[in-house]
This record gives sequence, structure tokens and C-alpha cells, in this order.
Amino acid sequence: MTADTDNATAWLSREDLDNARERLPIVYLNIVPVRTDPHGAATHIGLLLAPTPDGSFGQSIITGRVYYGERLRSALNRHIEKDLGPVSLPRVPASLTPFGVFEYFPDPAVSGLHDPRQHAIALGYAVPVAGDCRPSQQALDLQWLPVAAATPDYLARELGGGQHLVVLAALAHLGVG
Amino acid sequence: MTADTDNATAWLSREDLDNARERLPIVYLNIVPVRTDPHGAATHIGLLLAPTPDGSFGQSIITGRVYYGERLRSALNRHIEKDLGPVSLPRVPASLTPFGVFEYFPDPAVSGLHDPRQHAIALGYAVPVAGDCRPSQQALDLQWLPVAAATPDYLARELGGGQHLVVLAALAHLGVG
Amino acid sequence: MTADTDNATAWLSREDLDNARERLPIVYLNIVPVRTDPHGAATHIGLLLAPTPDGSFGQSIITGRVYYGERLRSALNRHIEKDLGPVSLPRVPASLTPFGVFEYFPDPAVSGLHDPRQHAIALGYAVPVAGDCRPSQQALDLQWLPVAAATPDYLARELGGGQHLVVLAALAHLGVG
Amino acid sequence: MTADTDNATAWLSREDLDNARERLPIVYLNIVPVRTDPHGAATHIGLLLAPTPDGSFGQSIITGRVYYGERLRSALNRHIEKDLGPVSLPRVPASLTPFGVFEYFPDPAVSGLHDPRQHAIALGYAVPVAGDCRPSQQALDLQWLPVAAATPDYLARELGGGQHLVVLAALAHLGVG
Repeated sequence: MTADTDNATAWLSREDLDNARERLPIVYLNIVPVRTDPHGAATHIGLLLAPTPDGSFGQSIITGRVYYGERLRSALNRHIEKDLGPVSLPRVPASLTPFGVFEYFPDPAVSGLHDPRQHAIALGYAVPVAGDCRPSQQALDLQWLPVAAATPDYLARELGGGQHLVVLAALAHLGVG
Repeated sequence: MTADTDNATAWLSREDLDNARERLPIVYLNIVPVRTDPHGAATHIGLLLAPTPDGSFGQSIITGRVYYGERLRSALNRHIEKDLGPVSLPRVPASLTPFGVFEYFPDPAVSGLHDPRQHAIALGYAVPVAGDCRPSQQALDLQWLPVAAATPDYLARELGGGQHLVVLAALAHLGVG
Repeated sequence: MTADTDNATAWLSREDLDNARERLPIVYLNIVPVRTDPHGAATHIGLLLAPTPDGSFGQSIITGRVYYGERLRSALNRHIEKDLGPVSLPRVPASLTPFGVFEYFPDPAVSGLHDPRQHAIALGYAVPVAGDCRPSQQALDLQWLPVAAATPDYLARELGGGQHLVVLAALAHLGVG
Repeated sequence: MTADTDNATAWLSREDLDNARERLPIVYLNIVPVRTDPHGAATHIGLLLAPTPDGSFGQSIITGRVYYGERLRSALNRHIEKDLGPVSLPRVPASLTPFGVFEYFPDPAVSGLHDPRQHAIALGYAVPVAGDCRPSQQALDLQWLPVAAATPDYLARELGGGQHLVVLAALAHLGVG
């Protein structure tokens, strides 16, 4: 997952976070940005070109922690703004029931989803964005991939840490899998 | 449910529809219109003042058939436009997995959901609408009910045919139940 | 989808059904049988070797209509018994919210899901079965495919009419996609 | 929520847990035990008579943390065994997509769900249990409440901390709300 070092210090020191990460599962969000047609059907998914936990670069969805005291809905909006900029006009779903729950472990053999830093439990959301997306901070670029091009083979090749499984679940949820 | 006699004749004569209704379950949509705050959280649900199948008037959600050859997404948009007018700006969810499936029977004892005309299997959706709503055709009025006022007792009193169960499921889905 | 001609005549003559199929979407169930480990995790999915609507043979999930007046839960149990025999011990989920809704059209270009006979709207369910499965009637055999072997390529090759999309959605829902 | 002090020390000292609880949202499970009829329809929900976080006794669903390194499915089975004993024969759903996500805060005004000890993010599951339930440890008793008796008024009166909202969402999910 993408690191979220930005203003985490407002809630938790880096040392404290490192300690917690060795002892508790951390709540994450896994967000797949979506472009839709005028009737609301998904036409493209958004993938970031971003640094990965293992230090290389790769395509990625939007991910990040939920802070202490923070509502899920606020965290969703915060992470989308962090990665897509202030005018992406996200339409966070009215229901926060996720399309799936994804368990990341430091040992990649446990679930197929791998996060070398921590045991993360991520709630998956597909979020239509209607505005201008300006990848910010650590993301270098944003690619809008037509859903027809988001094949299992393509996703498995381009996304690391097992995140292609999250995107495949998102596509199934969107009815375009 | 609200009758949808408008242009059904393009697909099916009234006589043919009556015949089919005695022989097959009919696919319906049950749509709960929603107002949201800027972060996407539901603040109000929309209820129509509309004629009920038993001939009286009462509060109702948006309901209607899916036509032969019609996509679910088109039917959702069509029924919302039919009941809320052309500028309600619905944001039909990117996923068409319903929040619930509701089985209506001519015999009210079967499931608690009652439709005297037919056995209907309705897919439930909560749809945010951002624009101007102008109840049209058979609906006389639209009420935006704050979610905090949408109590089980209120809904059971105001909605007929067991539709309060659909709204309660929608509210639970929206996290405001 | 598998034909379900068995006792449909109790509800609808063949001629009447053919008429209805040209005029109304028909409610279907799409059922993916699942073997689970003792903790409830899916280990295998069941695929039937069955005649397809286009007259050839192929792998298939369990499909069939909901009858007039029939509860969804009864229809689920009926179709599982029809295809897996009387002692498959299905554990139909306590919730009947489907993992997805699948739209089949006579024209394969509309949705990618193809049923030459009709416009079918199918509710998808994954159903663990704990007992002995004895494919009956028109199904010739049942294969238990390990979930790890149920790759997108394999499913696209073996399942016709776009049903691989249903199975992929089921696998995503089961957390093994 | 019910305290889960049992063997938490294997993962985290009490002091460390207290520290973490002031700094990170904690992943919880909210489990509603269900009795079903032979076709899988919910007939009763199980409520524990258990100590509440505020020191009194009250009716409660099954709740507890997910440990570091633990799979969700293992945690579900562990908490059910902890509260219902070793022969309750739970049928944990094949899909771990929760019916809802519930946000508990130390300040009851934030979400209506209240946990004085922590910010907890709970995944909700309805789990059929087929065997003998023997409430163990801190739970004094288990009541099987017919779903028809699980009215909003009854649940709001008997369950504390806003947990009635979780049960209402479970009932809606089960189609008996």
C-alpha cells in the first residue's frame, strides 16, 4: 500500500505507529476510483503510479489508514483528496458497506495480499469521481484504464502486493468484471 | 406499488400483462431517493404521496417494472425520471448489487410484502438525487424526510403493503437505521 | 442456462412460457455450489457438465426460474436438489441479498451474458453444500474445481454464455477471486 | 462490547493495549448468532446476558477484537466458541463481506454507537449456529429471541451502546427486519 506519512504525526508518532504495527491489525481503506457514463455505469478505473512498500514503483489503487477518532467517510474523502487533489469531486457511496474486506499480512503466503509493514485489514470501496484529478504528493501519475482493458492478466502484472485481487473484486462489484 | 401504466403498451398490452402477472413473478425495482451531505452521507429520504395498488393514497417509494430488453440501469433512471422529473440528477450507484431483494405476493401473509396485482420480485436501491425534484404523473407530492425522523413506527404507519420494511433495510444499508 | 422443463407445466404451459419469454424479463437464479473447509472458507466450486441453451454441452453453474408464488428460498433449494440430488445438504445463506445481479439477453452484445431463449435477470448466490452430490436429470456430471484452479482463463474457456463472469463474481465474493 | 481479556496477553500486554486504544481504531467483530429453519431462513437471533463496558449487565451480541496476524475467519470462529462454547457448530458464511461496518466512539454523540474504551471499527456478521450453545466465561446466559419479537423498540430498550442498530441491520440483511 501507499505510505501515508503526511500528517499522521498529528495522531501518532512514527515510533508509536511502528510499535502498533507489530501488535495490532491496522484499519485501512482500499479505494478504486471510477469514471462513469451519464447513467452511472463504470467506464474506467483509476490507477496511480506510486511508490510501493517494497521501494519500487508500480500501479496502485488509493490506500491509507483510518485515524483515531476519524469517521470512515471522512477518511475516504481525505485519502481521495490526498491522491487525486482537491477538485476530483468524489461521490463517496451513500452506503459504507464495503464491496469486500481485504486482509494484508507481512507474510505474503497467508492470504496472497502482502504488506511488508503490517497486518492491515482494508475495506474496499469503488468511488466515482466526476472532476479533475491531479495526482499529488507521492503519486506521479494517474491512469484511467478502460474497464474492458482491466483484464485479470493485465492487473496481475501491473499491480503489486496482491492488489489486483482488490481491483478484480471491485470490477465484479461494478458488474464489469 | 405505484402503477406504471404510462408507456408499458410499447412492450406489452394490458391484457398480456395481466395474463403474465397471473403466471410469472414480475421483476420490479424499489428505489429509495436520498439527499446527501457534501461528503455523501444520507440526510433525508424521499417519499412520494401516491396512489396505492388498493386504490387509496399513501406514502410510497419509487417502484416500477423492468421492461423486456431493458438494462437495469436504464430502468432505474427511467423510473426516477418518471417520478421525480427530468432534472432530479440521480446518481445511480456504480454497482447494481441491490441492498436487498423484496418478494411481494398477492397474499399479504406470505412475506409481509403485499401487492394485490402480482407476485413481484423487487431489487432495492438507494439513489442519491442532487437536483430539483418535481413529482410527476401520478405522484402528487414528494416529501424529504430527515433520516432521524424515519423511525420504524413512523414508516410502519405511513407506508403500505409492507414497504416500510424496504425503507428500514435501505436505512440500515445507509448506516442511519 | 440449463433448461428447467421438468415440472414447469404445473405453473405455465410451454406455449405460455414461450410467449412470456418474448415479452417480460424472467427471474432466474444463478447458483454456484461451494465446498468449504471446517471454518467455512471456500475450497472448491461445483460445475455441472450440462446441455447449454445453444444445444451443445459445457460446464455450467446451477440455474433456473423462480415460479409464480414461490419464495426465493424455496426456489434455491428446489434447483439445488434438482441438479445435485436429494442429499447434497445445501446451506442456503441466511441472507438472500445476492452477490450480484446478472442480466442475460438474447443478443450477446448487450451485456456479455447470453441466453438465446429470453431476457433473464438472475440473482447470484454461492451455496455451500455439505453432503453427497448426485447430479441428476440433465446434468451428466459434477466437477469440484479447487478455487485455485478456477482462473479467469480456465473459466472463460469452459463456461458458455458469459457465465464465467458470474463465477468470477462469486469467487470475488468468497474472497478467493 | 464484551471485554475479551482472556488470552489477549498472548498478543499484547494490557498496558500496550490501553496505549493503542488511545491512538488507533481497533478492528472488532460484531456477530449476531442466528437459528435457522431447515431451508436456511432465520427464525431466532441469539442475545447474550453479559457485562457491558460501563460495568452493568445487559443483552449483547458477540463482539471481540481481531488479533495481530489472525485471519478474520479464525477470529469469527474464536469469538463464537468463546461465547457459545465448543459445540455450537457455527456456520460462518462463505463470504466475509460484512452486512455492515459499525463505528464505535468513546463519545456517544459521534455515531450513536458507543464504546467508552476505544474507537472500534466493527465488521458485522450474522452467523447461523446449528449446535448446542453453552454461554461461557463472562456471558451468564443466552436468549434465543424469535425474529418476530426482535422489534426496534425491544432492541433499543435491551441493548446498550447503540448495538440495537447493529441487530436491526442484521435483521434487515436476513430479510426479517
